[in-house]
Amino acid sequence: MRINFIKRTLVLLFSIAASNMLHSQNVTSVKSDSTIIREIFDEALVNGRSYGNLNYLCKVIGHRLTGSTQAEEAVQWTKSEVMKYGLDRIYLQSIEAPLWIRGDKDYVALSENVDIAMNACALGGSVGTNGPLQASVIMVNGLPDLARFNKEDVEGKIVFFNEALDKRKINTFEAYGACVSQRYAGASEAGKLGAVAVLVRSLTTLTDIFPHTGSMGYAEGEKRIPAAAISTQDADILSSYLEEMGSATVTMNLNCYNAENTTTYNVIAEIKGSEHPEQIIVVWAHLDSWDKGEGAHDDGAGVVQCMEVLRIYKTLGIRPKNTIRMVLYMNEENGNMGGKTYAAKAKSDGENHICAIETDRGGFSPRGFSIDANDASIEKITQWQNVLEPYGLHYFKQGYGGVDIGPLKSEENKVNKNLILMGLYPDSQRYFDYHHSADDVFENVNQRELELGGASMAAMVYLMDKYWNTFITQN
Amino acid sequence: MRINFIKRTLVLLFSIAASNMLHSQNVTSVKSDSTIIREIFDEALVNGRSYGNLNYLCKVIGHRLTGSTQAEEAVQWTKSEVMKYGLDRIYLQSIEAPLWIRGDKDYVALSENVDIAMNACALGGSVGTNGPLQASVIMVNGLPDLARFNKEDVEGKIVFFNEALDKRKINTFEAYGACVSQRYAGASEAGKLGAVAVLVRSLTTLTDIFPHTGSMGYAEGEKRIPAAAISTQDADILSSYLEEMGSATVTMNLNCYNAENTTTYNVIAEIKGSEHPEQIIVVWAHLDSWDKGEGAHDDGAGVVQCMEVLRIYKTLGIRPKNTIRMVLYMNEENGNMGGKTYAAKAKSDGENHICAIETDRGGFSPRGFSIDANDASIEKITQWQNVLEPYGLHYFKQGYGGVDIGPLKSEENKVNKNLILMGLYPDSQRYFDYHHSADDVFENVNQRELELGGASMAAMVYLMDKYWNTFITQN
Repeated sequence: MRINFIKRTLVLLFSIAASNMLHSQNVTSVKSDSTIIREIFDEALVNGRSYGNLNYLCKVIGHRLTGSTQAEEAVQWTKSEVMKYGLDRIYLQSIEAPLWIRGDKDYVALSENVDIAMNACALGGSVGTNGPLQASVIMVNGLPDLARFNKEDVEGKIVFFNEALDKRKINTFEAYGACVSQRYAGASEAGKLGAVAVLVRSLTTLTDIFPHTGSMGYAEGEKRIPAAAISTQDADILSSYLEEMGSATVTMNLNCYNAENTTTYNVIAEIKGSEHPEQIIVVWAHLDSWDKGEGAHDDGAGVVQCMEVLRIYKTLGIRPKNTIRMVLYMNEENGNMGGKTYAAKAKSDGENHICAIETDRGGFSPRGFSIDANDASIEKITQWQNVLEPYGLHYFKQGYGGVDIGPLKSEENKVNKNLILMGLYPDSQRYFDYHHSADDVFENVNQRELELGGASMAAMVYLMDKYWNTFITQN
Repeated sequence: MRINFIKRTLVLLFSIAASNMLHSQNVTSVKSDSTIIREIFDEALVNGRSYGNLNYLCKVIGHRLTGSTQAEEAVQWTKSEVMKYGLDRIYLQSIEAPLWIRGDKDYVALSENVDIAMNACALGGSVGTNGPLQASVIMVNGLPDLARFNKEDVEGKIVFFNEALDKRKINTFEAYGACVSQRYAGASEAGKLGAVAVLVRSLTTLTDIFPHTGSMGYAEGEKRIPAAAISTQDADILSSYLEEMGSATVTMNLNCYNAENTTTYNVIAEIKGSEHPEQIIVVWAHLDSWDKGEGAHDDGAGVVQCMEVLRIYKTLGIRPKNTIRMVLYMNEENGNMGGKTYAAKAKSDGENHICAIETDRGGFSPRGFSIDANDASIEKITQWQNVLEPYGLHYFKQGYGGVDIGPLKSEENKVNKNLILMGLYPDSQRYFDYHHSADDVFENVNQRELELGGASMAAMVYLMDKYWNTFITQN
């Protein structure tokens, strides 16, 4: 009996939610900004869909490496989901993107009398080892430290990049940024000195058991050697072992490879502007993820927050002056072909983007926005603090707008010289606990934090849309 | 071999940490505030002990209800732990506190043909049911809603208080505060109308399976009826069941009881002031917890943060002008006799408290401080924002200083009319997910967030200590 009863209860709850979606009215003209923003947050916190959507994306679909079955499922599902919102235009944008295959289980071990396995995984983009590879290890403290060594030191060896994130950095993205070069370019630089492979300490502030993967690249025309991440716990052990024993032998077996390019899609949906449909405000996030965990914070959270912006607009009946467009795009993690293709197409179509707001720093409590714009624009945005601070938003500072929206602002794509790039700026303390690891799962996302982030995006879109014209005269 | 190798590594790490603790110097005089504060945060984030201490408190000791064996262990352990820091004075302060015993497993079930058990637990302070109690249920939406009913409606029934936390409140403490009366006074008020027991919807913004306990009280001379919390999931089911079926019968079996008072202790430790040892700045947190989970956020986090303030002071060799005192006290959860006894003793000893800073809102990313002081003092504190904002501290507003430090400020204890009360103000989104439930465990505390909170406390103590004299002339 209980099951039937629960079923009936659920049906009731869903029908209430559906009826809430339908009572849309065009009401923006008579309400104050603070009233509209209050309604946006109320809708996200009381009737929000982002958490349920993230659950589906993570638990039913799963991780979404570009070219994988799951990535294609995510394209189809997000498209069909936003079709329920009554938007003006929904379409897929075809892109050509690199296809990297992990292959069979990665194997990395400290080889003594017996092998002691490490928690390890190939870095994205790495070539395989072509069967087991065994070599002695030389430890280096980050990419710049490699300059201490010459070809004789490195030849035939596995270079172990062991730079740790600086825990003193309050913004963990700064700590990450300061040593990500060992992951991205470690193999390329070590290869030039004759190394046979590289191991990279995982880029997390935690001491944990998860290897944290991520992208790496090779220099054109140089030798391509395999690269794997090992957990910080294993890195500490290997490092202590080397210091104590003087040498260490490591065995690696990676079966990954770079395949032919693949065709995949950006998912685009929009609400047409009532006054300037040709002027576009974009909210965006990336639909692909690494193949560890579920891409919950990176960037499933961003995906469902962008979807939520459009849903909230329609549910509350807010009519934007400019076109509000959602771009969920593919291949941010290993090539950024989604972002590049979108920007190139925007240029060739002569589209006029006035603002682009990214969400790709995890579904944590929002604190504000980092803004890539001139000082006058930032000052203007900062004046909105009085209506945004009640929601915990206090940070409005010059900063990085995001890798994904970078191409829109590059010289050749500068359709609108006033283009403002922004990134939602959540609390950063926990982000690298999960980043690119098997622990980036739905359970580690808090519902309210996720919902507040989506509402913050919608509130910022609302203000940008309403006041954009005052920016033009000023700039 | 590996085990021995790891052991050696651990020994090495610990000896490094120990040597870091010893190289204390008295260096505050020549350094700027921002330099000192940077050192405080660096020490907390790089050599911090709070996370390890919390692990011990939660995993080795466990939950700490006043009068329990674990509570006494926590007294002895925290005392012995801070003895390592080289402080000037450490002592226990004896208190008499109420002793409440949960007894055997709590049982609450929806009784149809068979019983359908709910996730439930007795509220702290409740009397037992004296064997199984079965009655029909009447649902009420929070304490004020009880006024709709009269004795005939309620007589012989179980009153089910089902007010949900308002998800729209950005600060979840406001949502909690708005409906905590149903938990604290529900039984007392329903008892006056002849109810035989009460069920209370758990005070959490989540829909989860945990009953969240907490304190309740009876009015003097009124009938005492049993009270239990049920999980929000069970509350939703019971509520839907009542709406659909028109009636429901519930069986309750609670074995809890109020025993004789018990003797227990506040743990007090201090660094003597170099200029005004008679002026005291207190950091405090409560050592007791509910008997569900491990009291990790509530208030294990606060306990280890207070310990950390003293350790950081000694490690960095900061010499305070005024006395810096840590008070870890007992019985906040069910009687606050620790706070009351401390305040009464402070009064009778004529102690001069100039500032008291509580940490009891969970080990989440700190955002600032809520301050109970006059406007001039708050304005002064707000001016410190320039040195505190780099650490994410932006909130300095008039507000509640904390239940624990309330007694210090009551009329009869107002030794110092300029006493400033403050509470560390962390991000509140996740607090009530764990609060008073079996899910308030060590695993749900993030190391960096915890460490940042302790460092924020130390930084605030540093500034208050240095600039207190400028407050006096101003007030």
